[in-house]
Amino acid sequence: MGYNTYFTDALNRLHDERRYRVFAHLERLAGRFPRAIHHTPDGPRDVIVWCSNDYLGMGQHPKVIGAMVETATRMGAGAGGTRNIAGNNHPLVLLEQELADLHGKEAGLVFTSGYVSNDAGISTIAKLLPNCLILSDALNHNSMITGVRNAGTDKMVWRHNDVEHLEDLLKKAGKERAKLIVFEGLYSMDGDVSPIGKICDLAEKYNAMTYIDEVHAVGMYGARGGGQAEHQGEMARIDVIEATLAKAFGCLGGYITGSRALVDAVRSYAPGFIFTTALPPAVCAAATAAIKHLKTSTWERERHQDRAAQVKAVLSTAGLPVMPTDTHIVPVFVGDAEKCKAATDMLLEEHGIYIQPINYPTVPVGTERLRITPSPYHEDALIHELAEALVDVWERLQLPLKPTNAIAAE
Amino acid sequence: MGYNTYFTDALNRLHDERRYRVFAHLERLAGRFPRAIHHTPDGPRDVIVWCSNDYLGMGQHPKVIGAMVETATRMGAGAGGTRNIAGNNHPLVLLEQELADLHGKEAGLVFTSGYVSNDAGISTIAKLLPNCLILSDALNHNSMITGVRNAGTDKMVWRHNDVEHLEDLLKKAGKERAKLIVFEGLYSMDGDVSPIGKICDLAEKYNAMTYIDEVHAVGMYGARGGGQAEHQGEMARIDVIEATLAKAFGCLGGYITGSRALVDAVRSYAPGFIFTTALPPAVCAAATAAIKHLKTSTWERERHQDRAAQVKAVLSTAGLPVMPTDTHIVPVFVGDAEKCKAATDMLLEEHGIYIQPINYPTVPVGTERLRITPSPYHEDALIHELAEALVDVWERLQLPLKPTNAIAAE
Repeated sequence: MGYNTYFTDALNRLHDERRYRVFAHLERLAGRFPRAIHHTPDGPRDVIVWCSNDYLGMGQHPKVIGAMVETATRMGAGAGGTRNIAGNNHPLVLLEQELADLHGKEAGLVFTSGYVSNDAGISTIAKLLPNCLILSDALNHNSMITGVRNAGTDKMVWRHNDVEHLEDLLKKAGKERAKLIVFEGLYSMDGDVSPIGKICDLAEKYNAMTYIDEVHAVGMYGARGGGQAEHQGEMARIDVIEATLAKAFGCLGGYITGSRALVDAVRSYAPGFIFTTALPPAVCAAATAAIKHLKTSTWERERHQDRAAQVKAVLSTAGLPVMPTDTHIVPVFVGDAEKCKAATDMLLEEHGIYIQPINYPTVPVGTERLRITPSPYHEDALIHELAEALVDVWERLQLPLKPTNAIAAE
Repeated sequence: MGYNTYFTDALNRLHDERRYRVFAHLERLAGRFPRAIHHTPDGPRDVIVWCSNDYLGMGQHPKVIGAMVETATRMGAGAGGTRNIAGNNHPLVLLEQELADLHGKEAGLVFTSGYVSNDAGISTIAKLLPNCLILSDALNHNSMITGVRNAGTDKMVWRHNDVEHLEDLLKKAGKERAKLIVFEGLYSMDGDVSPIGKICDLAEKYNAMTYIDEVHAVGMYGARGGGQAEHQGEMARIDVIEATLAKAFGCLGGYITGSRALVDAVRSYAPGFIFTTALPPAVCAAATAAIKHLKTSTWERERHQDRAAQVKAVLSTAGLPVMPTDTHIVPVFVGDAEKCKAATDMLLEEHGIYIQPINYPTVPVGTERLRITPSPYHEDALIHELAEALVDVWERLQLPLKPTNAIAAE
């Protein structure tokens, strides 16, 4: 039909730029995480997953699976329609109450993904404010950028985590103008956190609203898993807390929490919410079980931090270029797209270790990296195997190792 | 903080325009569909659901629930990340193969919702074509309109199902220009179908691509449930078939199918796909079970049409203003927003019947209606109870009944 060549050309451009992505064909095994099956043309092989966003392994927690199985058995598979048509299913009502409680807000609203929650949340909130100016951190996630763009309002980007720059922009905008500051609690690719208290100080000083994305922090930080805002003692000062059910809570979906009027307005005005089938009751019940568990159980959070510290220590001792972070994200610097991809191919094929290469456009050219996410279930032996495999790959790809390498070989 | 008044004002506007929506708080009961529990302030009450988009009741099919339960038990709750980070989970690979086979296409791609599949699918396809002109049916769904808008290309709207108008626009654009025709197989609010063969004739004559939304038709039409395109014998002529897993297949998610290059290009270029966690393995397995079942079982489709015909006959005989359709959708005309809402409130509170009012902006002002969706599980007794309840409500709200009313009272 002639049209197909345009799509083939588009794919060839990605191949030429070494940006074409191949998704590994994996099969998760409940109760054996981080072990999984890699389906290859030569048959299934065992792998250790080192880059999952199921950060705490809650996707395999017996309470979570139990809630999913019990609810599916009792209520069926799907929700039966949009929330307007099919009504709010009961487990969804309970989930939104749980989320509001988690963040100390009046109300919560669940979407089918974090991407949609940011797109619908940011764009709808900004549209409902007169002549709103959005102030967006330079490293905000693609879904937030999409929400900012779809708002169609003015926007300004402040340098990442630079509160002086943010203050300059707030000052220029003036106290009278409606302003929405959007930023993340924890940035996933560098593993750094934002100065939430300082941002809230500025928001109060210049009368701006605050919207925080906590997708890489909920469940993992704060006394009850409320995220970086809870961890930093600033949760009550934030107007809108957005996060996900698909990472530390091990399920699917995104959400916002905030004042009753704000949440009700987004519910009533966001097309991406209104015209979408609700999350299945079983997924809602599973997420609620994970949130409830992590509100009181601290074992996962403590063990998670312990494992991340252990991975950083072992890899650094082995001479590997671990990029410094204060969080559970362990980026290992490569700085070359081809070698980054080659390293992960070798890890998967020869060492049975699954890590995704992080290349442009996810990170800037020249800062390509491996992004390792230890979970509470990565034992010492796995960490040492990882270090050995990485050193082997580093040497064969002639990537630089620090001289401490000799110590690590002990 | 001052900002909250903007959200309160926005809600008040909806209240003033009688457009504020309240979601009923329902609880589905597997094995008892269309019976459900309505959670009210006075406690739980039994209701009959008459407006579900789980059109065939597959959400409660033992094979579907069985696949969900078995897969959740074996693989856990969530997918663990985006498909780039967490890999393709095995049930998702099988689901996409199943969908490609269903529509006779080379490949399929699953999204977390039909809304996202239309937004990402249409916008990405159009962006990859040089100077693309999108030709969009006037009654296309909000998600398709969003996809058209987010493409940022030129667009023209053709009068609903008017192929002469479509030809005028195609002729004006010329054969050389890249053109994408987007339309639905079955329009959900009026229950009418599109002239797929004629649209394909025009697409071939003027060298345009075709993109069809079959969300209200898959599973229910065609020998294997391939939708209106299969039913009308035109499936092979369509370039892109988009549909949902959340209606007749009883689960959650949306998808596109098409040529390998096109699907791979959308996979590689659509941010709404790339940055979203994959559907849970258990949801994928449940959807696959529903699709597989409906490829060979015709009982659901035949019984579905039989029930729809029966509802139309009984309601018409009772004098109710059933709007004529050739499909399973049974709209009953009200023509007044207040009475439409009042009718559904009375049905729910006094008759234990759950039907959503369909008001502006979903349909034009003055064409407000009830939208009834009979399933294979709505037995004769339920249909007669529905007719009696509607007649009661119609009389009390002084809505017009046709004189045949007397016959229905027998």
